[in-house]
Amino acid sequence: MSKHFGDRLVAAVKEKGSCICVGLDPRLEQIPKHLVEKSLKEGDDNPMVVAARAVLEFNIGIIDAVCDIVPVVKPQIAFYEIFGAAGITAYQETLKYAKSKGLLTIVDAKRNDIGSTAEAYAEAYLGETQMFEGEKQVVIPAFDADSITVTPYLGWDGVKPFMDECEDSGKGIFVLVKTSNKSSGDLQDLEIKSGEALYEVMGHLVDSWGADDIGEMGYSFVGAVVGATFPEQAKKLRKIMPNTYFLVPGYGAQGAGAAEVKPCFNKDGLGAIVNNSRGIIYAYEKMEGFDEKSYAEAARGACISMKKDLAKIF
Amino acid sequence: MSKHFGDRLVAAVKEKGSCICVGLDPRLEQIPKHLVEKSLKEGDDNPMVVAARAVLEFNIGIIDAVCDIVPVVKPQIAFYEIFGAAGITAYQETLKYAKSKGLLTIVDAKRNDIGSTAEAYAEAYLGETQMFEGEKQVVIPAFDADSITVTPYLGWDGVKPFMDECEDSGKGIFVLVKTSNKSSGDLQDLEIKSGEALYEVMGHLVDSWGADDIGEMGYSFVGAVVGATFPEQAKKLRKIMPNTYFLVPGYGAQGAGAAEVKPCFNKDGLGAIVNNSRGIIYAYEKMEGFDEKSYAEAARGACISMKKDLAKIF
Repeated sequence: MSKHFGDRLVAAVKEKGSCICVGLDPRLEQIPKHLVEKSLKEGDDNPMVVAARAVLEFNIGIIDAVCDIVPVVKPQIAFYEIFGAAGITAYQETLKYAKSKGLLTIVDAKRNDIGSTAEAYAEAYLGETQMFEGEKQVVIPAFDADSITVTPYLGWDGVKPFMDECEDSGKGIFVLVKTSNKSSGDLQDLEIKSGEALYEVMGHLVDSWGADDIGEMGYSFVGAVVGATFPEQAKKLRKIMPNTYFLVPGYGAQGAGAAEVKPCFNKDGLGAIVNNSRGIIYAYEKMEGFDEKSYAEAARGACISMKKDLAKIF
Repeated sequence: MSKHFGDRLVAAVKEKGSCICVGLDPRLEQIPKHLVEKSLKEGDDNPMVVAARAVLEFNIGIIDAVCDIVPVVKPQIAFYEIFGAAGITAYQETLKYAKSKGLLTIVDAKRNDIGSTAEAYAEAYLGETQMFEGEKQVVIPAFDADSITVTPYLGWDGVKPFMDECEDSGKGIFVLVKTSNKSSGDLQDLEIKSGEALYEVMGHLVDSWGADDIGEMGYSFVGAVVGATFPEQAKKLRKIMPNTYFLVPGYGAQGAGAAEVKPCFNKDGLGAIVNNSRGIIYAYEKMEGFDEKSYAEAARGACISMKKDLAKIF
């Protein structure tokens, strides 16, 4: 039996002294030119292999630069799927490398489907793929991530297969509750007849789904995605889900700062990891004294600045 | 400017005289043993390549057997992601082969994210991936599907990038409205203060999102997923979304028959495509006179039986 995901997350946050999650959302046009040029020189018949190789090298640079000061990385899979199978190879390698450097990983894939299909997603990202029969049987993890983001529109039986995969494996999930985007209210803020908004109903559901699986540090392996761009709603959700770890997008490029992030934390300073993607991995574009060649050092600098900014909260 | 997706769908349904969508959800343990054995003999260092090759050959057999009698196939991507990058290669090849055989394709991926990330998904599945700059620039479609399923939990700005990709390209989307699974009511049936259920609110949203882009045959390129397992709700949704094509899961293995599917159609017999996955691709397991070797013929037979069953509706 592996250590509980909630405990692993708290341990990682304490060890690194940071609650920052680095979002690895590589866009080819923003990757330093020397990395793209290098991959182009190595060549391949398939341009997507060339692009994906540059993406992986970019990620390795970022991971090397930040792995001793942040606990978690979150590669957003859309930016890899755009390169087809080659992109998925880069995604698998990114997760593997991050793990080898002692980082926890979140697959940001927002997967969702009916139970039998959700099982396949859960096995793919958190569990193992069983192949063939008899003597030829092999069991291999396809992605072997520590956790994955899940969209709850299909309800309980679409989420449960992911939870089943987390039981005893030390893995976790983050269920979308209140997202950081401008239109998130279209559905999530709808007032239900009971008087609560839909995101509050979702909060109660996530709280109840995680209630039976709380680790020693007080957190469930069922986390929640709660955007920093809606601090009032986050405040309510913090109360509704006291034992739920929040994955908090919206800091930086999406507009939220330390003040907006504050309501996502519990009083002990735990309970939230704050994601920053563009503000860290492309910090070289904006931070004085850095350029394309020093993109990794710039990312490290941005993590240190973000840590100082978040320190204002406590 | 390509032909409008709604018109392409109606034309395909009329040409084939069928509204059946074949769900390509290959599970290795249900794929005929001779295909798995053949792929094992061909070998590879990576067992996932071996498994994915068997999956692709299985799909090609099904596609060859049904392409002249059904208009659409819908591979569910979870069953490919479980084999990592090798699975994605099989997925890309499946889409390509289906297209070469004159079938329309639906990527059943239920993707969803904030706008900037949804753009990447839309480019990946419906559009093209642009790589490199200057003389070295190449533009290649990663998946080149005709349509994709989309989950609406994030609201309008998470759906719009998919719609933008459909403009003038002849592509379409199917937005989850009322899903076929047992727990779909957890969120979708919640009563909103206005008196409507959440799925009805979603129906109105999908109707309005598609209103500006209706093809000559009267259907928008914004479709909806409406499960056959909830016929009462489907009846209401048919009225709310008169110009929306429904992608209808739930027939067969999930329990719905012709009577349950009926409310999904408009009076002209159009407006819905009915998916069947397990009941067609694994028909050889249950249909008399067929075995593993004749799985493709069994799939064809199951499509013909299903067509006869659905003919009762009109």
